[in-house]
Amino acid sequence: MINLAAGKCVPCRGGEPALTDAEIADLQLHVSQWQLKEVDGIKRLERIFKFKNYLEAVAFANKIAMTAEKEDHHPLIVLEWGRVTVQWWTHVVKGLHKNDFIMAAKTDEMFG
Amino acid sequence: MINLAAGKCVPCRGGEPALTDAEIADLQLHVSQWQLKEVDGIKRLERIFKFKNYLEAVAFANKIAMTAEKEDHHPLIVLEWGRVTVQWWTHVVKGLHKNDFIMAAKTDEMFG
Repeated sequence: MINLAAGKCVPCRGGEPALTDAEIADLQLHVSQWQLKEVDGIKRLERIFKFKNYLEAVAFANKIAMTAEKEDHHPLIVLEWGRVTVQWWTHVVKGLHKNDFIMAAKTDEMFG
Repeated sequence: MINLAAGKCVPCRGGEPALTDAEIADLQLHVSQWQLKEVDGIKRLERIFKFKNYLEAVAFANKIAMTAEKEDHHPLIVLEWGRVTVQWWTHVVKGLHKNDFIMAAKTDEMFG
């Protein structure tokens, strides 16, 4: 099994196609707790992480943000009392890129 | 003009009614950059804050989160590259409470 979480985002300048449904289905096996979601025709990966404590949720959101900045790939993070919702997708390919799966796997790892 | 930003959230245990439309209209004058939004029949205050830098957006989200924890009133914060969207409402009154306007004014002040 490939270790997505150990991957690095590759620079993605657009021009390349988004992943196909078959490629998505294959990669999704590695991040099975993420749901496929479509917003305005653009596929995203989404996972909701639950917390019993606000500050733990805040700390988790910060961990994701710091990794996002390091990899120069930034998700949508929704921070609420009790939960953090994370969505990964790639603007320039208008859909999902392998980078999104790498980041989803890294997010899982940060959740522990 | 009342200084909402200097206010403190009062404990809100439910049982009291949400603000009326007239009360909302009056308080909204003090936080005029916030839009009224209705989600599942529940009114919320929303404002989108723009940033040119991800880490500034992250720092702003953290400031809001720390104030939220201190006041024991927690918003929905959406953190993305370039912007932070904040929504305030009060679950237990299923709508808007004066606390939400106090927190919106405090959020404006943190944005500076």
